[in-house]
Amino acid sequence: MFSLQTRKKSARALLEPAYTPTGTNPWSQRDMVAVPYVHTATIPGPQSLKELEEFADGWGGSGSAADFINDLDSSVGCYLADADGNMLLDCFGHIGSLPLGYNHPDLMALLDTPEMRGAQVHRSALGMFPPKGWGKLVARSLGAVAPKGFNRVQTMACGSSANENAFKVAFISAASKARIAEGRGADEFNAEERESCMVNASPGCTDRVILSFEGAFHGRTMGCLSATRSKDIHKLDVPAFDWPVTPFPTLQYPLDEHQEANRLEEARCIDAVRTAIATAKASPTGKEIAGVIVEPIQAEGGDRHATPWFFQQLQKVTKETDVTFIVDEVQTGVVSSGHFWAHEAWGLEEPPDIVTFSKKAQIAGYYYTDKLQMTLPYRIYNTWMGDPAKLLMFDKVSEVVARDGLMESTKVAGAMLLAGLESLAQEFPHLFHNPRGAGTLCAINCKDMDTRVEIVAAMRMQGVLLGVCGKSAIRFRPPLIFTANHAEIVIDRFRKTVAAM
Amino acid sequence: MFSLQTRKKSARALLEPAYTPTGTNPWSQRDMVAVPYVHTATIPGPQSLKELEEFADGWGGSGSAADFINDLDSSVGCYLADADGNMLLDCFGHIGSLPLGYNHPDLMALLDTPEMRGAQVHRSALGMFPPKGWGKLVARSLGAVAPKGFNRVQTMACGSSANENAFKVAFISAASKARIAEGRGADEFNAEERESCMVNASPGCTDRVILSFEGAFHGRTMGCLSATRSKDIHKLDVPAFDWPVTPFPTLQYPLDEHQEANRLEEARCIDAVRTAIATAKASPTGKEIAGVIVEPIQAEGGDRHATPWFFQQLQKVTKETDVTFIVDEVQTGVVSSGHFWAHEAWGLEEPPDIVTFSKKAQIAGYYYTDKLQMTLPYRIYNTWMGDPAKLLMFDKVSEVVARDGLMESTKVAGAMLLAGLESLAQEFPHLFHNPRGAGTLCAINCKDMDTRVEIVAAMRMQGVLLGVCGKSAIRFRPPLIFTANHAEIVIDRFRKTVAAM
Repeated sequence: MFSLQTRKKSARALLEPAYTPTGTNPWSQRDMVAVPYVHTATIPGPQSLKELEEFADGWGGSGSAADFINDLDSSVGCYLADADGNMLLDCFGHIGSLPLGYNHPDLMALLDTPEMRGAQVHRSALGMFPPKGWGKLVARSLGAVAPKGFNRVQTMACGSSANENAFKVAFISAASKARIAEGRGADEFNAEERESCMVNASPGCTDRVILSFEGAFHGRTMGCLSATRSKDIHKLDVPAFDWPVTPFPTLQYPLDEHQEANRLEEARCIDAVRTAIATAKASPTGKEIAGVIVEPIQAEGGDRHATPWFFQQLQKVTKETDVTFIVDEVQTGVVSSGHFWAHEAWGLEEPPDIVTFSKKAQIAGYYYTDKLQMTLPYRIYNTWMGDPAKLLMFDKVSEVVARDGLMESTKVAGAMLLAGLESLAQEFPHLFHNPRGAGTLCAINCKDMDTRVEIVAAMRMQGVLLGVCGKSAIRFRPPLIFTANHAEIVIDRFRKTVAAM
Repeated sequence: MFSLQTRKKSARALLEPAYTPTGTNPWSQRDMVAVPYVHTATIPGPQSLKELEEFADGWGGSGSAADFINDLDSSVGCYLADADGNMLLDCFGHIGSLPLGYNHPDLMALLDTPEMRGAQVHRSALGMFPPKGWGKLVARSLGAVAPKGFNRVQTMACGSSANENAFKVAFISAASKARIAEGRGADEFNAEERESCMVNASPGCTDRVILSFEGAFHGRTMGCLSATRSKDIHKLDVPAFDWPVTPFPTLQYPLDEHQEANRLEEARCIDAVRTAIATAKASPTGKEIAGVIVEPIQAEGGDRHATPWFFQQLQKVTKETDVTFIVDEVQTGVVSSGHFWAHEAWGLEEPPDIVTFSKKAQIAGYYYTDKLQMTLPYRIYNTWMGDPAKLLMFDKVSEVVARDGLMESTKVAGAMLLAGLESLAQEFPHLFHNPRGAGTLCAINCKDMDTRVEIVAAMRMQGVLLGVCGKSAIRFRPPLIFTANHAEIVIDRFRKTVAAM
């Protein structure tokens, strides 16, 4: 029996990959030989508990939901070490924000480049004082992987800032069109607008609204939160704009076995959007809908999927009614869906108007179409407008994805994971239902919330770290180096866990 | 005559400091031998123009207000190099967000520490997956310099997120107190609250409001923007909450020569706050004021000062009426006012309820008092909740401030700068008035907006980079290594500029 110290070192030695870039993702293949390892009687173990106590004492902060402590130095690949030397196969990846797992050699090497060092030591105010090469860096990183049809992007610091500013673009666009319709210039504000906005009143501050869907999650600042509809605990006690909400399709899985019923459900939801837009336009007191925002997969809301047809129709409605169509890819973007951007699976003939991103991209921001380019400075603006160091991280992630074939391996791993979840649902129908997924963005529902709590806790003691969403779903958000072998380990541990229950 | 390339190298060699930490800030003293240098006929010069064109072509973004390109590698100390090899004495410091100037050796050295490397390669989701030592890091950095009376802090990614969440804390606090008054638990939500919040309606989404001051700037996300009152261009076309605004004192400078008139003006503004709070409480349709937010110096609004008495009275009113008192130190925090936090100059007997920060801190967030600690997780929350790498930057900045006596040198530099501005106002009364300042947070008003445009442009050609604010003010926001010698150069260049006009 190893001591804790010895075991920690030996676990790390076992997992540590010998990295030789050959174009076939050898690093993640190497950690396939590893397995999860839990040696404490509970997680959190004693070391985690000790740190968490210090935490609560003084400087733990307002919002912590932590119940164990990470040891990042000892983590590697898809394996997260905790403070007690347990090695957990991480299927949640920091709420879907971990692009290449732990201590990826290419990201470590990036830290030593002069470009990265310069970006780290100065956090430029990019909107006013851009550094040399900024335009080229944006072009080679976000530009190179832009969804089809986009040649413009604005960086931001986080997902909420990305969505808040996407909304602002939609509002400014709608107001500009209204001014043009009145025979004014797009930015030719009148005195009434200039004065009323200073007291937060219309017409200067618009009465227009953003439509979002039941179950949606778009962030927690007050604009974003007004579009978020997933859980009451996020929204209670905080003011919200009187924005409309319509149903998101509640589909039956597997999708291809329920095409007819699902089409009817999606048509119902599209009709609701069309009606909401039309009603607002027709009524003298109606609030014009400036934008519609939707997630490709409703994540926080329970990993709810819709078919390409739904999104095609949604875009059609927004085009017919001249409403800005915003796709929130904060959680679905960057390869894990099996496409670089999840909405690329929809086969749209024209791009959405705006696509927002953050999380695995490390940098946040939004792509937008030419017609949404601002003509005045300082309307979309803040001090930092992103962070060059995070954009360099994104650039390297994209490079590794392409070089190591991570899109393909993610598809394979996701297919393996989904097949495993389907087996579980067949073997244990009293516990699991509705396995579903795109790429590694997989999910399965548990019988109920209590069962989920029990299974997720037991799986953690089996060395597999899972996320949850909605009322009873387990959600998978592993890093992009998650392979079919990792998927096999996960399914194997599920079987062991359930057998012991 | 040097070629551009030669001159650039030689300028850098001239400026490059030989850093030997002796506790007397030798690095910034060393660059005192340098002077601004401009060799192009215009700024932007040809290289800047070339990059800006590429920029506009493709990937420049929504909001750029840039008109020249920085060369950070060639910048040093307080001197910002542009893409054409001009060396500008930077008195604006990336909108007040540059803590230790360019290429500070201690920040460069920080990049090589294992702690910083680990923080850079993983952007932890701190609210759920904190790394080992996170509590200790917060304690030794933000904890060690906490304003008196605070032992709690929450990190965030940017100033807007800091203020949005400060507002949320104020709203949650007010709603919790109301529930307790009804005989419920603070977090004992009823069905009506739970249901109404999901459709963005009260009582679940509160009708309560935040009071801010005319001329205030608190950020650009929709909650923040509802409290921002500085300029219409920031607010036009964006929805805002129907929040109240009261006047900020318009004082006469120098403050000590107009004490009586200023006191009357401040009393008038305090009365307006008291009346707004009381009226809202008394009226059956009034919207209860949950919080009041104020900047120690209204920056974007025109560098408008108030006296400690004003802020003392403001706190008194909020305490009497049980309203959360929020001090926005996003721009004034971190030493530049001559105190670590500007509000420490007010001599408050008890701390404000919340103090927000960002910019020079590199990390953002807010200090808050014990009574504002959340009891439930996920109410104040987001994916990243800050960034450990930026907190390590802040930690190093604080260490250098203490070691190199930057608080003292900032006071001396600020006094020298203000004295110089006072001379300018006396020598050129037709051009300048109202010199004012705290530490290096100095400002002076120009005759009018056109005169300011002319002076700022001419000063840039003299090698001094200035910021502006309000209608006619020039604002100084240099880094913390700005010394009395730099101040002398600035004033000297002002004289040359004005003489040539």
